[in-house]
Amino acid sequence: MDPRIRQHASIIVNHSVGVENGDTVLITGPAAAEDLIVALNEAVGDIGAVPVNTLSNGRASRAYLKAAGADGLEMPTHQLALAEATDKIIRIRGDSNVTELSDVAPEIVAEQSRVNQPVSETIMSKDWCLTQYPSSGNAQLAEMSTDAYQNFVWDAIDKDWEAQHDHQAAMVERLNAASAVRIVSGETTDLTMSVEGMVTVNDDGHENLPGGEVFTAPVPDSVEGEVLFDLPLYHQGQEVTGAQLVFENGEVVEHEAEKNESVLQSVLETDPGARRLGELGIGMNRDIDRFTYNMLFDEKMGDTVHMAVGRAYPETVGEDHEPNESATHVDMIVDMSEDSRIELDGEIVQQNGTFVFEDGFEDA
Amino acid sequence: MDPRIRQHASIIVNHSVGVENGDTVLITGPAAAEDLIVALNEAVGDIGAVPVNTLSNGRASRAYLKAAGADGLEMPTHQLALAEATDKIIRIRGDSNVTELSDVAPEIVAEQSRVNQPVSETIMSKDWCLTQYPSSGNAQLAEMSTDAYQNFVWDAIDKDWEAQHDHQAAMVERLNAASAVRIVSGETTDLTMSVEGMVTVNDDGHENLPGGEVFTAPVPDSVEGEVLFDLPLYHQGQEVTGAQLVFENGEVVEHEAEKNESVLQSVLETDPGARRLGELGIGMNRDIDRFTYNMLFDEKMGDTVHMAVGRAYPETVGEDHEPNESATHVDMIVDMSEDSRIELDGEIVQQNGTFVFEDGFEDA
Repeated sequence: MDPRIRQHASIIVNHSVGVENGDTVLITGPAAAEDLIVALNEAVGDIGAVPVNTLSNGRASRAYLKAAGADGLEMPTHQLALAEATDKIIRIRGDSNVTELSDVAPEIVAEQSRVNQPVSETIMSKDWCLTQYPSSGNAQLAEMSTDAYQNFVWDAIDKDWEAQHDHQAAMVERLNAASAVRIVSGETTDLTMSVEGMVTVNDDGHENLPGGEVFTAPVPDSVEGEVLFDLPLYHQGQEVTGAQLVFENGEVVEHEAEKNESVLQSVLETDPGARRLGELGIGMNRDIDRFTYNMLFDEKMGDTVHMAVGRAYPETVGEDHEPNESATHVDMIVDMSEDSRIELDGEIVQQNGTFVFEDGFEDA
Repeated sequence: MDPRIRQHASIIVNHSVGVENGDTVLITGPAAAEDLIVALNEAVGDIGAVPVNTLSNGRASRAYLKAAGADGLEMPTHQLALAEATDKIIRIRGDSNVTELSDVAPEIVAEQSRVNQPVSETIMSKDWCLTQYPSSGNAQLAEMSTDAYQNFVWDAIDKDWEAQHDHQAAMVERLNAASAVRIVSGETTDLTMSVEGMVTVNDDGHENLPGGEVFTAPVPDSVEGEVLFDLPLYHQGQEVTGAQLVFENGEVVEHEAEKNESVLQSVLETDPGARRLGELGIGMNRDIDRFTYNMLFDEKMGDTVHMAVGRAYPETVGEDHEPNESATHVDMIVDMSEDSRIELDGEIVQQNGTFVFEDGFEDA
């Protein structure tokens, strides 16, 4: 086994979710990630915890969803019971074919998110981690050889997370002190929102591996303006490009997309919360040096801002606020590398992708 | 997809476990069985039931067991919660390598059976089915090409289970009416036991697919004599050949094996119930025409008798008897094709593999 796989497992178990003796651990992944699943079972056994392995399989999901249809979907109460009885949850992505759900009607996929909401909420109430195995399907999506993609993935994962935490702390401090946020990019994005009283999280490789962002929740009603997400979004096997949203009083009042607008529309129609922002995130991981059309990595790049419609992460919602609730949570990315800036209470904290506390900010 | 896979899924879902609208269904299988898992998800969705897929993986099991060791094993309470919340359980076997557990100490494997007993009992209290996917590892064990093995497996599974039920009913009737059973084979097997007050089950493809046996529980203290299991046993990835047991007052008082005696010994040492018989089964499936070193098939052959040390199936234990309880249940087979007979209360009901109600019995 490639020694980087055991290292990956060790970071997940010891750093990301902190498995302890006696813990029940749920490992969910695809067959393509077999080596990492094996290494995780070993690491969990070493600690004296006990694993259950569930299979995520795009072909099986497609077959079930198409057969059941939107009206036939039921909440999996046995999956809920499993999640409730689990201490630590590890979710591995790694597709042989990232487009397995491309011929499932978007409204069926959206309905499944809605129906499964109690399961999602239970998982998010635990110590959980979402990570990536460098499978062939994801390598293809990134337009990379599988070997080069392995290097990319494991370089982004096997890093000094304490140093990364410290790098990000400068931005966490600024966001926690701020009220008004403004995101400007070219002629197509000028969005304002309040984060007053919200909590910014320093994502240093716990719930996402790789980590490398700071994120908070906008005050739901405060979002105003327009945004073009200039990077493509892969949602349940379908690519959405050129997604544009216009917000008034926090709600999406106009939307369009160049490709697969119906997918975007299905997401927005999931429930009322799906028309509001649940997350504002700022990428800060300088070791992720290229777009790979994979949100888990792209949103961490230092030259990006991302926003999610739908569910807010509870830990980002201040105690004087209600969280934005939704069955869905879909991230979309704005490229901030050129002709762009982030302002906090009128002060520019990032210009053309360079943060105010990084070298080169003056010239950016 | 090979149409026989959808047919296999249909038999499991509609005949074996009888999935109904609204059921929670647990599908457990290896990656090698992906096509069958996909077909099952489709069939479950068609009915309006909801699946969860868990992964069985020999490499992951080995990694966990070796890391944890016998002392580090814990009962997976989350797996128990999942099983308890499930209505219908489908377990698929199908190995890439049937010997993945060959370098795990037998006492660790036996301890896992003991620790996991609440999970096993919960599964057995549900509608469950154990079936086989024709994977390369099992084909290799059978010394067959994968394509020939596919034919063998699906021919044994896709049959008229109603007709098979009727064929077996003749033997069920005789066993239910009988008290004393005697099994004789060559110079090496002469075993007597009582089945008085026990219940014989007609295995027509419900809990095992393929089915094709009738089975009951011996009165635990009644077993006397000696038996040579002349067909090899694969237990947790290790082959045991030439296993011999001597019973007095129902208990194993002597045991030996030609190969891997330590595996046999570990099984017998699981707990006190592991030294008594929990099952007597008689194979009656004439469509299984060769040994494939796979208990699920071999024990169904018309020319065999099998006995299991360990746990009795509750449905075979009459109300005036206590079930033999154990964390383990290990089947072993006697070849009855030559110089052999089964007697019920002194009457010969099978001679050299031919039943009294089959053509050719007089000449057998």
